[in-house]
Amino acid sequence: MSLKIEDNEVDIVIAALRPNLNTFLEAWRTFFSNFHLIIVKDPNLEEDLQIPPGFDHQVYTKSDMDRVLNGASINFSGHSCRYFGYLISRKKYIISVDDDCLPARDNSGVIVDAVTQHISNLQTPATPFFFNTLYDPYRQGADFVRGYPFSLRDGVECLLSCGLWLNIADYDAPTQIVKPSERNTRYVDAVMTVPLRAMMPLSGINIGFNREVLGPALVPGLRLVGEGKRRWETIEDIWSGMCAKVVCDHLGYGVKSGLPYVWRGVGSDTDNPMDSLKKEWEGVKLMEEIVPFFQSVKLPKTAVTAADCVIEISRMARENLASLNPVYAQAADTMEAWVNLWKVAGSDRL
Amino acid sequence: MSLKIEDNEVDIVIAALRPNLNTFLEAWRTFFSNFHLIIVKDPNLEEDLQIPPGFDHQVYTKSDMDRVLNGASINFSGHSCRYFGYLISRKKYIISVDDDCLPARDNSGVIVDAVTQHISNLQTPATPFFFNTLYDPYRQGADFVRGYPFSLRDGVECLLSCGLWLNIADYDAPTQIVKPSERNTRYVDAVMTVPLRAMMPLSGINIGFNREVLGPALVPGLRLVGEGKRRWETIEDIWSGMCAKVVCDHLGYGVKSGLPYVWRGVGSDTDNPMDSLKKEWEGVKLMEEIVPFFQSVKLPKTAVTAADCVIEISRMARENLASLNPVYAQAADTMEAWVNLWKVAGSDRL
Repeated sequence: MSLKIEDNEVDIVIAALRPNLNTFLEAWRTFFSNFHLIIVKDPNLEEDLQIPPGFDHQVYTKSDMDRVLNGASINFSGHSCRYFGYLISRKKYIISVDDDCLPARDNSGVIVDAVTQHISNLQTPATPFFFNTLYDPYRQGADFVRGYPFSLRDGVECLLSCGLWLNIADYDAPTQIVKPSERNTRYVDAVMTVPLRAMMPLSGINIGFNREVLGPALVPGLRLVGEGKRRWETIEDIWSGMCAKVVCDHLGYGVKSGLPYVWRGVGSDTDNPMDSLKKEWEGVKLMEEIVPFFQSVKLPKTAVTAADCVIEISRMARENLASLNPVYAQAADTMEAWVNLWKVAGSDRL
Repeated sequence: MSLKIEDNEVDIVIAALRPNLNTFLEAWRTFFSNFHLIIVKDPNLEEDLQIPPGFDHQVYTKSDMDRVLNGASINFSGHSCRYFGYLISRKKYIISVDDDCLPARDNSGVIVDAVTQHISNLQTPATPFFFNTLYDPYRQGADFVRGYPFSLRDGVECLLSCGLWLNIADYDAPTQIVKPSERNTRYVDAVMTVPLRAMMPLSGINIGFNREVLGPALVPGLRLVGEGKRRWETIEDIWSGMCAKVVCDHLGYGVKSGLPYVWRGVGSDTDNPMDSLKKEWEGVKLMEEIVPFFQSVKLPKTAVTAADCVIEISRMARENLASLNPVYAQAADTMEAWVNLWKVAGSDRL
């Protein structure tokens, strides 16, 4: 397998939760400037966006959402606004980084090009069927270790690249309260495939994915009743990440986790975890139901696209989860509406 | 879960394939000197061992093997001699490092204490049921990320710690031939749990494990017909590693991979990969059968100890693999003989 990804196959999606994007975009200029930027303004944000000159970009606002939704009930406010960018893009690949993240530095002090690393993760195969102890076998200077079956060394196409974060780690509110001054300083120089059937908590802060094949699975389905704009108050990305993982497992694709890192700034999520604590417990409690649910999902052979799979998962969520909490019925509704929208919005490979 | 491992609960097992252990032991003196060393001399090695003074150690030779085996048919020659040390130990934990490996240096140039790292891996829980994107959540400065279910944060006891290698990576002969001058220079500062049901290729070069619980699974079962003393000519550790993994999965324990690294010297395995190539293809071909076999192993609820599990696996190997190649029937025989020996040799928890 040898993929080649061209610049014009990639859109960078930025969820604008804050009006001033100057610092963010200037910091990323070197790495973003070859690509088209889809900037999605949080529909609850009233101020005008500040965007420095020199970027090939398009801003999408509430009126664009209303037009595309055409009455469908999907809530794009807060962190969920990025999903509108996933929907509206016509490119094969999406890379999305939160607006409170700056480029990180590796162990040698070199600034990390997160875009190139995500593309590299997506254009080299994933190896979900057997664990390679020396991490990514396709990386320069690495390979498959003794005992790795040759028949599995071609791997499978990687559809999702989950990047990580230095400085402010992506903890939930309780953990943030327990360790208010903890910072993630450890740069682990590795990319690995998340093995078949292992579920992981996707963070939407820093990801790359194949929109054309996987797009419908990245769905803003699960919305907590009291969720706000702080990352630790939301778990829509965790839900969609597990959708994406079971879809990849079912369709024979791979998911990677690890590099690239981004540097998450203080100020967005750290201001007051106590305020979020009460809300967050809802998400923390739901995870106890969500993880066993996704671990038990078995998709039928008739589901041959991500859209098919998402419809099946929404059906299963309605059957198995909806009686536990109304948020699951709403998630199921949103997933169906999302797949319908995705079909109308029109991707070739659906 | 909070384990505390005392020095007197640990034996260090060294397979002596070369007579001169001076360089090896001097390099490890700081880290080994608090522990008892079990030095097992390859029964094919004729010269006397050279062991520097100042180590609390016991040397075991062919005559010890003959005495303990008492007619049982287990071949302890070459790399397999280490398994005799596993059997003869009475300690709860074993750490084993190959005699061509020296302490590695981390990214800051600090020499790595592999013993302490293995003990740390074994005394902190493993998390096989859900993937933590920030690696080992029990490490200082790390934690579980947002979305990780609290009910899974206690983890389970870790029974096996698989360390890695800098410089000479543990490749098979074909890979070594294709990349004769490739060296592994990347120190990945991470430990992770190998997820439930994911199989990995254990290398016996640098491991730590709970002998008391897992011991019978570390069995020198699979012996290639033409195998020699070079690591790439053997896959007995790969076989036993997959035994250990399915046993841990079945009994509810965990396996970790990553730190500690050791530095593998040139000279042992690199002298002539061409000589090994013909032999190695046997192992490479067998892996195509071995991996699907272990992926399909389902152990019965009646198997409640590692010894029970190994007997079941030997039975399944005889049923499903023995018709493909006589080495599998021999592996099954060895596994049964091993469990019997282990019972006689006497571990409390069998």
